[in-house]
Amino acid sequence: MENYTIIPPQTGKAFTMKKGQILTVMDPQGKQVSDMVLFNLHDYGERISSGKTLDFEESILLTAGNTLWSNRSRKMVRISADTNGRNDFLLAPCSKETFEIMYDYHDYHPSCLENLTKNLEPFGITQDDVPTAFNIFMNVQFDVSGKISVLPPTSKPGDYVEFEALMDLLVGLTACSAEDSNGGTFKPIHYFIKDN
Amino acid sequence: MENYTIIPPQTGKAFTMKKGQILTVMDPQGKQVSDMVLFNLHDYGERISSGKTLDFEESILLTAGNTLWSNRSRKMVRISADTNGRNDFLLAPCSKETFEIMYDYHDYHPSCLENLTKNLEPFGITQDDVPTAFNIFMNVQFDVSGKISVLPPTSKPGDYVEFEALMDLLVGLTACSAEDSNGGTFKPIHYFIKDN
Repeated sequence: MENYTIIPPQTGKAFTMKKGQILTVMDPQGKQVSDMVLFNLHDYGERISSGKTLDFEESILLTAGNTLWSNRSRKMVRISADTNGRNDFLLAPCSKETFEIMYDYHDYHPSCLENLTKNLEPFGITQDDVPTAFNIFMNVQFDVSGKISVLPPTSKPGDYVEFEALMDLLVGLTACSAEDSNGGTFKPIHYFIKDN
Repeated sequence: MENYTIIPPQTGKAFTMKKGQILTVMDPQGKQVSDMVLFNLHDYGERISSGKTLDFEESILLTAGNTLWSNRSRKMVRISADTNGRNDFLLAPCSKETFEIMYDYHDYHPSCLENLTKNLEPFGITQDDVPTAFNIFMNVQFDVSGKISVLPPTSKPGDYVEFEALMDLLVGLTACSAEDSNGGTFKPIHYFIKDN
């Protein structure tokens, strides 16, 4: 049994990993999204880029075998395993405004943007620096007209995605806080890092 | 006849506009892409966000009636007219690495990222600050498997898109430098700004 670190529901973590190490992100109960952002550990100006990744990978959908690229056109991680197979790289992390604008909910609501910012601030990252996240297990459907629908994840308990670091990284990772993205309930996310 | 400013082929411009003004971006010869990035004129940490826009607009494809949003979940511009109807907000601006990685071209090649950076640097914007652009007239096709194909634009000579500024803006705009995005030839882009 691997020694997982637990991200409690509606929270996040930030941590570093070295080139060559493998990060496993696991959904212990199923149907739970985890937003992931990546920064070059030695120069935070370099960060994960949806626009560069979709361009170089020539695909909106990314799974085992695909690479996630930086805004400087360099490889950050390779997806080395993906037992579920559906992730999203279109939508920005949910923020308090997401709940105000899309759900007319105006009280306090935890969000991935808040949880990423809170955990990355000790490293010197500000909220404006948080890019569009790679949304592990997020089930965003689209058709050729471009219409987007967010459905519950298809992930089952124990499903996981593995990322091999292709440079030294600072990682932000959440257990997502949005009702509609997670089948209506908030579950933890587990992760661990191992040497290759 | 409007007094257009000309962006020569494979170059770019940066300029400011005030809330309420309307920017018209016109393709004088047809089949020419123009990459556009937007910053809050009074705080460059706020910039155009593909991830927030696709989320709030619930669509990958954006045309007249749609709004382009910032990373702080605020409205930057409303698309008030679009005579062509096909634009892209998936792919990052072409960079010298685009030509190296995707086309195995290793000599100097102009790029939208270089042209945006060069023109925005006098305002204090660095290359790392340049976000995924809204790619006017760019014809990126995709299917439900996620597979992306870049086809020549469908724009005809004189086609234009109008953007109404919803805040004071710093704008970066190019005549795109990538062969495959522009039907193999490089043409100018014309623009003008008028009061509403």
